[in-house]
Amino acid sequence: MRRTERYPVVGSNSLWHIYKTVPFWKVMKNFIVIQLGRYSPSLPFKNLLYRRFLHMRVGDETSFALMVMPDVMFPERITIGRNSIIGYNTTILAHEYLIDEYRIGNVEIGDRVLIGANSTILPGVQIGDDAIVSAATLVHKDVPAGSFVGGNPMKIIYTAEEMTMRRLNQ
Amino acid sequence: MRRTERYPVVGSNSLWHIYKTVPFWKVMKNFIVIQLGRYSPSLPFKNLLYRRFLHMRVGDETSFALMVMPDVMFPERITIGRNSIIGYNTTILAHEYLIDEYRIGNVEIGDRVLIGANSTILPGVQIGDDAIVSAATLVHKDVPAGSFVGGNPMKIIYTAEEMTMRRLNQ
Amino acid sequence: MRRTERYPVVGSNSLWHIYKTVPFWKVMKNFIVIQLGRYSPSLPFKNLLYRRFLHMRVGDETSFALMVMPDVMFPERITIGRNSIIGYNTTILAHEYLIDEYRIGNVEIGDRVLIGANSTILPGVQIGDDAIVSAATLVHKDVPAGSFVGGNPMKIIYTAEEMTMRRLNQ
Repeated sequence: MRRTERYPVVGSNSLWHIYKTVPFWKVMKNFIVIQLGRYSPSLPFKNLLYRRFLHMRVGDETSFALMVMPDVMFPERITIGRNSIIGYNTTILAHEYLIDEYRIGNVEIGDRVLIGANSTILPGVQIGDDAIVSAATLVHKDVPAGSFVGGNPMKIIYTAEEMTMRRLNQ
Repeated sequence: MRRTERYPVVGSNSLWHIYKTVPFWKVMKNFIVIQLGRYSPSLPFKNLLYRRFLHMRVGDETSFALMVMPDVMFPERITIGRNSIIGYNTTILAHEYLIDEYRIGNVEIGDRVLIGANSTILPGVQIGDDAIVSAATLVHKDVPAGSFVGGNPMKIIYTAEEMTMRRLNQ
Repeated sequence: MRRTERYPVVGSNSLWHIYKTVPFWKVMKNFIVIQLGRYSPSLPFKNLLYRRFLHMRVGDETSFALMVMPDVMFPERITIGRNSIIGYNTTILAHEYLIDEYRIGNVEIGDRVLIGANSTILPGVQIGDDAIVSAATLVHKDVPAGSFVGGNPMKIIYTAEEMTMRRLNQ
């Protein structure tokens, strides 16, 4: 179960009233920072941008690949540990806007985590240390530390124990 | 079965002859409108753009999130009802160009439908009222009204009846 | 099994040291060429760009749709035959950067191949002649010639023999 806080809305859908739920200037500022980060060739500069202007927690030496897309509304809900890799064009969502409510949830990614390209991470999930998320995965639930997951819907491909055995047998 | 009209081509593949199948100026105009819409912060302005210049049918209060990508060649084949949400970076295709033919099909999305982020909707499908499509779904067949679907390939996760029961039990 | 060459790294993750593994100027040049190609309306011009400046092998009449994303680091590892179609926003990766190593692998796509929109092709795979890859597929292993594949994880939907039968029965 993903951990999200739910806010019901009345009348038209929650996205139609977006700037009642998050200030216009905040979305604009976040969008500009995210676009700079998406195309910046310097990894340390991206981390500085994300920490300073999006208020994301990003550990040392964590690497964002080209065109990563952090949440444009609530990026401050995203925490990533140290020495992790977030792959090309990964989408990290901290919100979901539904017809009759919207939900906000923290995304917590551990240390030495690898997220493959084109993955989508939903609000309210935790990804444990040393986990490997395959490319194009929909991360719609927690990922156990050390495991290798992938697919849509996401499945555990190898548990942490199986990954340890595979490394020993190499 | 998706509802598409099929046009065989001879010689090289259908996309190589793209501007024999759709006028160059139309694709250019559509592309500019779509790029404006992808990054516009105003939801009512997007709806105006899509209705006026792409000839899409879009119902009142329907909300397009950031970077939605309607079909660049045949957007006039797309109909969306009222009070629906089309999530971040969703691709709505009304064409498919194959090696020896191309196909065009209407996409019909109902009222109060939620399409999750990064989904891909193929030509010739209908999505019924009140349906919920999970993030990153490949919508390659019809979605029954009121159901909750997701995955790649797409599966029904909860039927309309199950969704009603879940709401009552909340 | 995908065919990749593996390069271990010590200390922080492989992406953090990106410009020790591939020259900065090469990535910059590739990025500019790829961005031009992503949005160019002329298909022959894209092929010229990709052959001349990215050193990809691209056969005659092969068509790249809008916003295709070839590998920004090692595009010279990508070979595509003649009269194929690479669909909208397809990502073709020739590298994968993991925490403690990086891997590089050739991508070989045959003649008359169709790749559907929003697919992700991983390094070290071969896609045989006349294969059809559905939209939004994660191509994480070889695709047999003439087959129809799709899904995430990728599965064979119809074998080459079944595809031949289906064409005869039409």
